[in-house]
Amino acid sequence: MILQNDLLLRALNGEMTERPPVWVMRQAGRILPEYRAVRSRLSGFKELVETPELACEVTIQPVDLLGVDAAILFSDILVVPEAMGLPYELIEKVGPRFPETIRSAADLTRLHAVEPEEHLKYVMDAVRLTRSELGGRVPLIGFAGAPWTIFCYMVEGGGSKEWSRARRMLREAPELAEDLLDRITDATIVYLNAKIEAGVQAVQLFDSWAGALDRTLFERYSLPRLRRICESVKGAPMIVFAKGAGWQMDRLATLPCEALGVDWHMPVAEARQRAPQHVLQGNLDPSVLYGTEAEVRAATQQMLTDFGRGRHVANLGHGVYPDIHPDRVRAFIDEIQRSGDR
Amino acid sequence: MILQNDLLLRALNGEMTERPPVWVMRQAGRILPEYRAVRSRLSGFKELVETPELACEVTIQPVDLLGVDAAILFSDILVVPEAMGLPYELIEKVGPRFPETIRSAADLTRLHAVEPEEHLKYVMDAVRLTRSELGGRVPLIGFAGAPWTIFCYMVEGGGSKEWSRARRMLREAPELAEDLLDRITDATIVYLNAKIEAGVQAVQLFDSWAGALDRTLFERYSLPRLRRICESVKGAPMIVFAKGAGWQMDRLATLPCEALGVDWHMPVAEARQRAPQHVLQGNLDPSVLYGTEAEVRAATQQMLTDFGRGRHVANLGHGVYPDIHPDRVRAFIDEIQRSGDR
Repeated sequence: MILQNDLLLRALNGEMTERPPVWVMRQAGRILPEYRAVRSRLSGFKELVETPELACEVTIQPVDLLGVDAAILFSDILVVPEAMGLPYELIEKVGPRFPETIRSAADLTRLHAVEPEEHLKYVMDAVRLTRSELGGRVPLIGFAGAPWTIFCYMVEGGGSKEWSRARRMLREAPELAEDLLDRITDATIVYLNAKIEAGVQAVQLFDSWAGALDRTLFERYSLPRLRRICESVKGAPMIVFAKGAGWQMDRLATLPCEALGVDWHMPVAEARQRAPQHVLQGNLDPSVLYGTEAEVRAATQQMLTDFGRGRHVANLGHGVYPDIHPDRVRAFIDEIQRSGDR
Repeated sequence: MILQNDLLLRALNGEMTERPPVWVMRQAGRILPEYRAVRSRLSGFKELVETPELACEVTIQPVDLLGVDAAILFSDILVVPEAMGLPYELIEKVGPRFPETIRSAADLTRLHAVEPEEHLKYVMDAVRLTRSELGGRVPLIGFAGAPWTIFCYMVEGGGSKEWSRARRMLREAPELAEDLLDRITDATIVYLNAKIEAGVQAVQLFDSWAGALDRTLFERYSLPRLRRICESVKGAPMIVFAKGAGWQMDRLATLPCEALGVDWHMPVAEARQRAPQHVLQGNLDPSVLYGTEAEVRAATQQMLTDFGRGRHVANLGHGVYPDIHPDRVRAFIDEIQRSGDR
């Protein structure tokens, strides 16, 4: 099946495209009334993640309703630790919770290797179904959490501001930490390769809590595992988004991946200076979308100017907030898609 | 009364001292068993803040028990919005909560100007008592929240990861936001000047959520008010700590304050490059203190090397975590205090 809109794949391939491709982190979900209608019929978020027909439906919604240049499979980064043997719950208005956590070497015995077509068959089925339903309109992105970010949840058992328990393990029990990080890395490689095999055409690695590591810890614990994943995942371009880790951008720039995400905190010029070779993805502050349509369009133009022509995948610099109006997201997307006409 | 250890004041004055002064953010509290003994006798955290004898006692504890070069008055940044007319509660293990918030122009009528000796007399009494009890051993620091950070709590009503409601107000109702920020700024100036009048010998302004603003918003909403405070607070050196705002360090360097705090995320060389004139304060990652004593000492040495001689107030790059052992804090302090001998 021929891909009708291959802008994202060409841009990730380093080609100079007529305009930047655009998609939006968290485009599938929350902000769309059509998503909330699906969600309201269900027992919970996990039912949506685990039912391929439903995951497919909400994955395609933003393609129809927002006109983005790529779909991203609706899922959760925590399906991987669950597949490793550590189940999670999602508590409404609180967030994820792991009833069991990893705090000692003995806890590691709870974990096992991941067989994607066994432990994560619902994801693979969702990929296959979504590829088929998309009918080649836009490429399908798959994602996973980076090892350090998954480690944070497995050790803390839920969200945290400082992740001081996870960082405590790095300082107090570095060998245990490395063991756990390596297991997560192995699972992530198997998972992403299986997703590509099932049909995703690009992958994004979210190191959402990379900003909780100083340079020394980032270089020891996160970076080598990001590198191993980049080297071991084959067959699709890779975007690495290490949120809050702008000070490590020069190190991220040593990764053999196609693109690096830039969060909205980081000035674009600083990112370009530190990662001159990579395609960069980002980075409008989502809160801009609380403004008027004219303000959204002006800020989007400024972002396009800041990135310059080429080596750019347009996106927000963080997931869109749930209370943002879809019309503002449409204005953001439209402004980028029109930029090719000029 | 002669100040026996005036190292902090000389360093903030830009003098080359025999070694950097050292104190620790959150040194008064949590980590000390002696603090927890005081705290356990009380109904809550606010009783401690509002009782001058108790605030004085826990303020002086780290001078006796850790040997720091400065005391910092035990208090809370939220006493200022409370004095303006918006009371807060502290919920155990959750954090602060404001039963009433500011969401509209009508809500502003709840607020009034602050008369420190009336609305915040307990703070002024605590300052006077602590100065007297310290007997000139070390200088006493007073602190306040920066306007943007106080604004965040007054608008959201409690803690938040993204502060998207506060940022939404900046985008949707900029005039209302400026009005509220200006009122907070007025209150903060009056408050800090009164604290200096009562006896504090240096002040620190905490812009704890500065990192939630992109450059445009930081320049419009936070920076001008930090500047007005720096210009209007007289009689004591000022340290401005804008956490997570390392990308704005070049702008912070335009402030007429004596010192800038550096959080642990930011490499020291990047901070020096952006703020070459200011005394810098920081910035060891508190999680280093989870390591062995040898690791703490080595990392502290590295930090001293990174900052170089002069224009440095040694500190952590964030408040010390509650579960860190006081002995590790002592090792950090000792390593800095010994550095003068070499």
